[in-house]
Amino acid sequence: MSDLLLRNIRPMGGKPADILIREGRIARIAPGIEAPGVATEDGAGALAIPGLVEAHTHLDKTTWGMPWYEGRRGGSLQDLIDNERNARIPLGLDVHRQSMRHAVALIANGATHIRSHVDIDTDHGLTLLEGKLRTREALRGLIDIQIVAFPQSGLMVRPGTLELLDAAMAEGADIVGGLDPSSMDRDPKGQLDAIFALAGKHGAPIDIHLHEPGELGAFTMELILERTQALGMQGRVGVSHAFHLAMLPEGRTAALMERIAALDVAIYSTGHPSAAIPSLKAMRAAGIRVGIGCDGIRDTWGPWGEPDMMHRARVVGMKNGLRRDDELEMLLDTASGAGAAAIGVAGHALSEGAMADITLLAGETLAHAVVLDEPRPLVIKGGRITARAGRAVVDAP
Amino acid sequence: MSDLLLRNIRPMGGKPADILIREGRIARIAPGIEAPGVATEDGAGALAIPGLVEAHTHLDKTTWGMPWYEGRRGGSLQDLIDNERNARIPLGLDVHRQSMRHAVALIANGATHIRSHVDIDTDHGLTLLEGKLRTREALRGLIDIQIVAFPQSGLMVRPGTLELLDAAMAEGADIVGGLDPSSMDRDPKGQLDAIFALAGKHGAPIDIHLHEPGELGAFTMELILERTQALGMQGRVGVSHAFHLAMLPEGRTAALMERIAALDVAIYSTGHPSAAIPSLKAMRAAGIRVGIGCDGIRDTWGPWGEPDMMHRARVVGMKNGLRRDDELEMLLDTASGAGAAAIGVAGHALSEGAMADITLLAGETLAHAVVLDEPRPLVIKGGRITARAGRAVVDAP
Repeated sequence: MSDLLLRNIRPMGGKPADILIREGRIARIAPGIEAPGVATEDGAGALAIPGLVEAHTHLDKTTWGMPWYEGRRGGSLQDLIDNERNARIPLGLDVHRQSMRHAVALIANGATHIRSHVDIDTDHGLTLLEGKLRTREALRGLIDIQIVAFPQSGLMVRPGTLELLDAAMAEGADIVGGLDPSSMDRDPKGQLDAIFALAGKHGAPIDIHLHEPGELGAFTMELILERTQALGMQGRVGVSHAFHLAMLPEGRTAALMERIAALDVAIYSTGHPSAAIPSLKAMRAAGIRVGIGCDGIRDTWGPWGEPDMMHRARVVGMKNGLRRDDELEMLLDTASGAGAAAIGVAGHALSEGAMADITLLAGETLAHAVVLDEPRPLVIKGGRITARAGRAVVDAP
Repeated sequence: MSDLLLRNIRPMGGKPADILIREGRIARIAPGIEAPGVATEDGAGALAIPGLVEAHTHLDKTTWGMPWYEGRRGGSLQDLIDNERNARIPLGLDVHRQSMRHAVALIANGATHIRSHVDIDTDHGLTLLEGKLRTREALRGLIDIQIVAFPQSGLMVRPGTLELLDAAMAEGADIVGGLDPSSMDRDPKGQLDAIFALAGKHGAPIDIHLHEPGELGAFTMELILERTQALGMQGRVGVSHAFHLAMLPEGRTAALMERIAALDVAIYSTGHPSAAIPSLKAMRAAGIRVGIGCDGIRDTWGPWGEPDMMHRARVVGMKNGLRRDDELEMLLDTASGAGAAAIGVAGHALSEGAMADITLLAGETLAHAVVLDEPRPLVIKGGRITARAGRAVVDAP
């Protein structure tokens, strides 16, 4: 935990000021701070925001930095899952190396927090988790990594997976994952009862991938909401994707969103470019905690994406048809302070007493910064500089 | 028209070869060409494709390189059109300067051809066209610019516009434009009869913006197809956006696409991120000539976009859910050889006798090049080098 005087930045796009950091926390924000003996960094007038938050990705999947992968398939979700599970070993997809590459690139591009899923299946056991735990350890102090134990190949349909999830939680995963309890597992009651029980056992939150469309997705969401309420899990459950919220009549969507907000269930959206996605503005207006994430980056599923939350903010903003400055500011907040709240990190803000997790952005205004594809001038985590001019202070293998 | 020996490139991602250019045309493609006295350029193993083709943009609208514009609005298409028409003069949006910035950036990023619309309305008369004609002249030999005289604010609803379109065609515009004949002009027969007559008078092709949804768009498309057939305009008519082709029952879409292909009407898609768009694969499979374009870049309508056809190819590819290598190759072709055919430029290929309009790309394979966000190593137009390492050989004002 470091002391640092960050001079000449524009907090949240406002007037120029300095930020004094003491023991890793923001001690003071004001113009012209004097702090003799404290290391000083000149922000050169850049914008300052709370560090970027990657709320939904898969650090264990990327081929970033590896030779081009030619084996991608079309087909169903099941085809894509099977192709990946079968390709990992022949491809030589070392999870520690690849998650380091992915996470270090996120740091370089301004992230201070990551929530990442890791595949837990009966073919790989806990080996993928172990690679990622090493990465979390190697990057401790540079970026916070939350790990979701994720039954990518199904839970009820692959006996033995629940026991592996239990072991994963014991070994260091933070969050119990789920996946399409109806369409994938064919047993929504079975999967949801199992993962809520596991979360109870470990005192852990839950994060469920829910791709299910229309009324099927709404049905599964209702089952999730019922359990959240019955088990007192308000504020501890998140649902990723939630495509169904873009496929229902307006009144039905509004009623669901109201209940999601009331039970404080978070939604994580990746702004999926070719799928229907729930409206960011509607979710925020309903009072839902929302985070955004890059999802998989150049993995066996698809060739797209960059390990960069500003790139993803643009994808999400374009997909949501955002145009106005106030809309772009809301988008940036969703990738920063609000996104942190959505993954359970409170108080992620440029305010006195908060952790000094700060990202500088180029641009005239916050809205301008969203569309400007330029390197982040400086990234600070707990008062420590983690990246400068688009390059992280650590190298990836 | 220049001679050049381009050494050590991989034509269409194939084995390393050289390309000999004589008088601006491709004279020979083979390994180890000797051409004493001819200037030589080392491609360093880069991929080579026919130059990128921007098939739908608005060079007269961008604020690129200007201070951040804070006045963007939400609202209807009409609101966006009115906001822009009223903002141009207070903003100081000089069309010559801005179209130069936009076009030079497209060159830097590998384009050799642009089709650009220019607003013709009763507020601005032909002043916007004149700025763009100066740009076309200034960049002659560096990039080919086709200009569509575009009634952005409506034709039948703004008397005097048709006469201005006529004058624009006389002054140097190449193509007669149209816009939402039903939803904007409230008189589809009136607008279409007028622009087909104007095209006949000037011996010019037609390019119609058609945002109209569902069966309304299909109705207008039918009116366009009927006139194309009756007037023998096969191969001379293009429709931009064509969102309706993404909103109809599958059989109806297939039948419309079949007729569009039979009458050789081209479709230009921008891969609009927040709208329904016609399937690139379905259109190509139906035999339709398809081009893609960036549409407006950071203009009064919206903050998004880059003046870069590789960036746009990624937007279109993500929107279309393309994953496999063969799909990415099809996408790249749509931004290159096939896109040229769609705007009426035949023979845009790496073949002996073709114009030496060539773009080099970084990457292991053509598919890899699509997702790789790196500067274009070299761009050649008619044998002349127009950009190197992501920088054009000319400066914009």
